[in-house]
Amino acid sequence: MTDFSAWTQACQARVERVLAEWLPPSDIAPKRLHEAMRYAVLGGGKRVRPLLAFAAGEVTGAAVEQVQHAAAAVELIHAYSLVHDDMPAMDDDALRRGKPTVHVEFDEATALLVGDALQSLAFEILAAQPLGGDATRQIGMIGALARACGSRGMAGGQAIDLANVGKALDLTELEFMHIHKTGALIRASVLLGAECGRLSAPDRAALDHYAKCIGLAFQIVDDVLDAEVPTATLGKTAGKDAANNKPTYVSLLGAARARELAFELRADACAALDPLGPTARRLRELADFVVERTF
Amino acid sequence: MTDFSAWTQACQARVERVLAEWLPPSDIAPKRLHEAMRYAVLGGGKRVRPLLAFAAGEVTGAAVEQVQHAAAAVELIHAYSLVHDDMPAMDDDALRRGKPTVHVEFDEATALLVGDALQSLAFEILAAQPLGGDATRQIGMIGALARACGSRGMAGGQAIDLANVGKALDLTELEFMHIHKTGALIRASVLLGAECGRLSAPDRAALDHYAKCIGLAFQIVDDVLDAEVPTATLGKTAGKDAANNKPTYVSLLGAARARELAFELRADACAALDPLGPTARRLRELADFVVERTF
Repeated sequence: MTDFSAWTQACQARVERVLAEWLPPSDIAPKRLHEAMRYAVLGGGKRVRPLLAFAAGEVTGAAVEQVQHAAAAVELIHAYSLVHDDMPAMDDDALRRGKPTVHVEFDEATALLVGDALQSLAFEILAAQPLGGDATRQIGMIGALARACGSRGMAGGQAIDLANVGKALDLTELEFMHIHKTGALIRASVLLGAECGRLSAPDRAALDHYAKCIGLAFQIVDDVLDAEVPTATLGKTAGKDAANNKPTYVSLLGAARARELAFELRADACAALDPLGPTARRLRELADFVVERTF
Repeated sequence: MTDFSAWTQACQARVERVLAEWLPPSDIAPKRLHEAMRYAVLGGGKRVRPLLAFAAGEVTGAAVEQVQHAAAAVELIHAYSLVHDDMPAMDDDALRRGKPTVHVEFDEATALLVGDALQSLAFEILAAQPLGGDATRQIGMIGALARACGSRGMAGGQAIDLANVGKALDLTELEFMHIHKTGALIRASVLLGAECGRLSAPDRAALDHYAKCIGLAFQIVDDVLDAEVPTATLGKTAGKDAANNKPTYVSLLGAARARELAFELRADACAALDPLGPTARRLRELADFVVERTF
């Protein structure tokens, strides 16, 4: 059994390969758009969502050759959301994954189209590959991803986030936002990976509880890092939340209590995995990775 | 057999109903986003793409209760593209379907998220409904729509359009742009409608040839109307192409020859329908509608 670091590197390399294959080459028209799509997606990011998909696939005995397409799809959705979120009309950020953001490196119109086309490509991949061995189940996966990124999922969370700038939120309202903004896609990542194998109803419920907890923990740690880690280490603009007067777990709870809450959520997430035994090993390790990461 | 006008009204009312049901109500959070999504989609537009889907479904004996979901999906993709295209980073337009554009009526961030969420909703609908009686075929339809709106379809056409502003194109280059920008989604509309029924390979080829011709004819007429019809009648800003120094069929050929070309494409489109007999009646009528419309 390989160690966690070797496993993540293998998964990251695998999803990178799939993404590089599916993203149209930059010598095919429209070249600038394709170049910008590759710029936005390849060679960066922790690939947390793909890692969650691969780890969940191990629980259900899924073939990694199938999970890799689900993993690529969720990463494309994540990448599109970053490109659009960074635009001047939204968070107006110039740095992402240690590089200039797409609208800075290219232009705003290209960034808009890059996001649009990456979303389409995610669904194209999910539809092009046989996943989970059953077409009806595969349609269910496509629907689950569409719901996760729509107005009652990720895009809705972004809208709630924007509406809340400068407002005093309580913890429940902040949680409501993050359940949508980051939580929905993280749940979908776990679900899609698991659905590539044989997923029983109780295992589905256990995995979903894990994913909910990990999604929130991920966001809390994001808030802590945004407040504590310098831009150079983070690869994106640090201190942004405070500068934008955005409510965060740190502004509501302080960094120490926020970190504690992330640890509690990890414990809750891992408790949900107990019935799954050793197949859930990578999910447990990922829970550690999510709360202990420093960038 | 009802006349064309009664048929279009029935189809438009049907797709409006489906869209109104699938768009989240504006009293559900995030309310402003949902309100803006409904504003962008409901109560306007000719619904040409849904009409093409319904008409193609008649050729293959598809159940209208299935086609209506494919029709709603292609209209949502079209609506999302209008919202994003009208934004300041793209065409920067203030008027659409006789109303202020979404970023004017709401704001730019909301317009961005509206487009994103409408695209997701299109795939959500296609995945939620049993279409065409066969899950594998349905996955094929989802993939076809994803390709049609991605970087080698509609979004790619938009990128080519932007790259060409102020450039002298020849007819081949202009056609290349429109095959992507409007043609791909129109072909997908015909295909998805037809796939809800029993579609043979020769019929598929005939319908696809029809759709290619109609897609181009539609764009040519759009160019003519943009040059000749006042803003109040058009419901969107007229004369925009000339003002933006965009190459069009009118700037390349003159309005008279452009109109002639549209009529030739109609003849070509209808010739392709010959083997399909009377089931293709609505498609023939739609070909007339597309080239003879005045707004």
